[in-house]
Amino acid sequence: MSERVVIIGGDAAGMAAASQARRLKSAGELEIVVFERGHFTSYSACGIPYWVGGDVDGPDALIARTPAEHRARDIDLRLRTEVVEIDVAGRRVRFHGLGTGLEGWIGYDKLVIATGATPIRPVLPGIDADAVHGVQTLDDGQSLIDTLESIPGRRAVVVGAGYIGVEMAEALINRGFQVTMINRGAEPMSTLDPDMGALIRKALQGMGVQVIGDTELTAVRTDAKGRVIAVVTADAEYPADIVILGIGVRPATDLARAAGLPLGESGGLLTDLAMRVRGHENIWAGGDCVEVLDLVSGSERHIPLGTHANKHGQIIGSGVGGDYAVFPGVVGTAVSKVCDLEVARTGLREHDARVAGLQFVAVTIESTSRSGYFPGAAPMTVKMLAERRTGRLLGVQIVGREGAGKRIDIAAVALTARLTVDEIVALDLGYAPPFSPVWDPVQVAARKAVTAVRRDATAGNRPQ
Amino acid sequence: MSERVVIIGGDAAGMAAASQARRLKSAGELEIVVFERGHFTSYSACGIPYWVGGDVDGPDALIARTPAEHRARDIDLRLRTEVVEIDVAGRRVRFHGLGTGLEGWIGYDKLVIATGATPIRPVLPGIDADAVHGVQTLDDGQSLIDTLESIPGRRAVVVGAGYIGVEMAEALINRGFQVTMINRGAEPMSTLDPDMGALIRKALQGMGVQVIGDTELTAVRTDAKGRVIAVVTADAEYPADIVILGIGVRPATDLARAAGLPLGESGGLLTDLAMRVRGHENIWAGGDCVEVLDLVSGSERHIPLGTHANKHGQIIGSGVGGDYAVFPGVVGTAVSKVCDLEVARTGLREHDARVAGLQFVAVTIESTSRSGYFPGAAPMTVKMLAERRTGRLLGVQIVGREGAGKRIDIAAVALTARLTVDEIVALDLGYAPPFSPVWDPVQVAARKAVTAVRRDATAGNRPQ
Repeated sequence: MSERVVIIGGDAAGMAAASQARRLKSAGELEIVVFERGHFTSYSACGIPYWVGGDVDGPDALIARTPAEHRARDIDLRLRTEVVEIDVAGRRVRFHGLGTGLEGWIGYDKLVIATGATPIRPVLPGIDADAVHGVQTLDDGQSLIDTLESIPGRRAVVVGAGYIGVEMAEALINRGFQVTMINRGAEPMSTLDPDMGALIRKALQGMGVQVIGDTELTAVRTDAKGRVIAVVTADAEYPADIVILGIGVRPATDLARAAGLPLGESGGLLTDLAMRVRGHENIWAGGDCVEVLDLVSGSERHIPLGTHANKHGQIIGSGVGGDYAVFPGVVGTAVSKVCDLEVARTGLREHDARVAGLQFVAVTIESTSRSGYFPGAAPMTVKMLAERRTGRLLGVQIVGREGAGKRIDIAAVALTARLTVDEIVALDLGYAPPFSPVWDPVQVAARKAVTAVRRDATAGNRPQ
Repeated sequence: MSERVVIIGGDAAGMAAASQARRLKSAGELEIVVFERGHFTSYSACGIPYWVGGDVDGPDALIARTPAEHRARDIDLRLRTEVVEIDVAGRRVRFHGLGTGLEGWIGYDKLVIATGATPIRPVLPGIDADAVHGVQTLDDGQSLIDTLESIPGRRAVVVGAGYIGVEMAEALINRGFQVTMINRGAEPMSTLDPDMGALIRKALQGMGVQVIGDTELTAVRTDAKGRVIAVVTADAEYPADIVILGIGVRPATDLARAAGLPLGESGGLLTDLAMRVRGHENIWAGGDCVEVLDLVSGSERHIPLGTHANKHGQIIGSGVGGDYAVFPGVVGTAVSKVCDLEVARTGLREHDARVAGLQFVAVTIESTSRSGYFPGAAPMTVKMLAERRTGRLLGVQIVGREGAGKRIDIAAVALTARLTVDEIVALDLGYAPPFSPVWDPVQVAARKAVTAVRRDATAGNRPQ
């Protein structure tokens, strides 16, 4: 007898789940219905800043698989159709066609919630003006590009200095805009410790971005016609023709909340290791709408990233298709490019470690991407946190140039395997002059951390 | 009371040991005497091909620390002085000044053997001609460059197609030579499986190297004045003005053998985990003259690499200085650049796995260094071996372009931590479009390996 799975959301997690389920079950065994509010499926939201910046042709290039391709695999994909209610007891969802106005209920045997995340948009005067843009979906990207091409002014204000904010600042510079960046924290990239964030600020300033820290948006000023003219903070006002909101996202879980499904502190859905919503054997959730287990701190966190969403989808599809797979958790790895700087982090920042109740030593070193004598050897800063007493690796942050960013993977695997800094010093990493100094920069940091852990142990019980 | 350590060999292992020992013990506590046969200390032999190719100015740039710098730290460094005998029972060594003819004995409390490796030079007619060069020491490099600049001909034959052979072929092409490469194996780079080696052959051929496999040097033909005119194999004769021997090295352990110290199958010294020569509490050995434990196969291997030599030196210096450190072993990681190809390997090849008694599945995938839509995304081939039944990672080989090589570190750490291919699929690696597709190529290979392990398990007991 045929079953039906209903999937809410047609981006990475939802469509990866649909594809994997279809690999395992034929159309005769499993009917797959996907509701997607937007016009696109399976796209790389992470690519939007590069589309805006002109490095990538969008939106087509950002689409991994088109609606037609999904439909050809017997996936009943309903675009521009929003799910507006989940009836858990009745095993059905209510949908609403955004173009058509068509409404109805559809029953499910299995449900997948992959509703993603929504850019945070504080309730402030002027925030709904046309030229205030989020950057989350391909529709957002298209709308932003349309505005950039139609407005006469060249002054942009980016609110927020996380990955999206920083990437958008660079994209706008590339398009010839004057860019001001307003940030609540003292330094950009709050996913790094402030001492490392300061390196990013300098790079942004170096490419002409005006970076304003320790401040907060209080209003967007518009003229009589509703056109943006300035961004207002507690201390100042910055002229603006366009505003980009990059102050983060929150899990899009209003539907799930209304249906009484379990949410964590950040508002993300809580799942078991097989990505099933806790307490619900026939409901899965994945991607930017869930919380994931942070293997280093042992707590649940909301980490919206395409790479996790794809893994979740794969695991959900396996579960829906009757196979077995689990998502063990994350260590918090992220990498980004700001101008010619490569920025990467994994594990815990100092603040995270303190919140988790961990005591640590922190060291920072300077090294180079290649042997110092080799052409193209570029400086690299590596910060490393190791647990007191045990020397277990807790986190790494890297800021450097070409060849710096993906070195974070060494630390990501080491964190997963719970290696100590001593064990990292002994790792057999790839060495040749065009690739690395004879001690990889991550190992240079680990050597210093080993010394710091030992010094700390002999210095007595001073908490840090 | 002051102790004396005598160190035989002043390159990476020997001088790293001297430096680390000096950090731990003052000149009043520990006298450090180093004998070095050549003119240089602490240099990067790995950099020689780049010096020959003109990418790097040598030899000075390749020297990490000069004799004067070492001497300034109270290290009694005796250049151009060879140790010709070790008297283990008498705790003394006999030395011979190469320039001076000075001979003598010196006693030691502790001895460090860091005699490195010697290029293999088969006993064949013509092999001792002036224009037949090895590439192991800075002295070799200088002598080679002198020959390249003085000979009128432009035809070079490289014998051997390992890292050094391949790097030298490229360096000679860069200097405007016609290059023929003669190789005993079917494909270059026998540290890779032949299917991956074939990719290197194509790259070499693409840059104009004539690659001759499945053949062996039988003689070097010289003219009446002793000048090289051709290289002879069983099947053919190749005109040559200069010959580079890159057929590998063997541990330089004649001294150790004569002293009755324990050697392994490859002729390398056998040590304990603290790098002490087995059975000898006051003799350490490290660098290219020792065998190391291969953590994947569980057997001892000779792996001459600067990165290991530096680690060994560090550990030996700690031991000599009264501190504690061990070298747990290697997983066999190596990375190299051939033209614009990046070549990397870690763990076991198919052949190694069979020799170790391991049964495995092998998969190969094609992916890209960055998101497919991102400018500069370059193709990459990843081969992965996983153990049957357990799915434990056994080895990875990568051939690709920019951004491919150092990805081997993911596998190197995973091998050290004995991760399974399932665990590799779940790793939280750095993702952003300029750095990686949403599934890192190593994880794409791991996904295919997971499927292969499962298929193998259900296919019954067919050995592979």
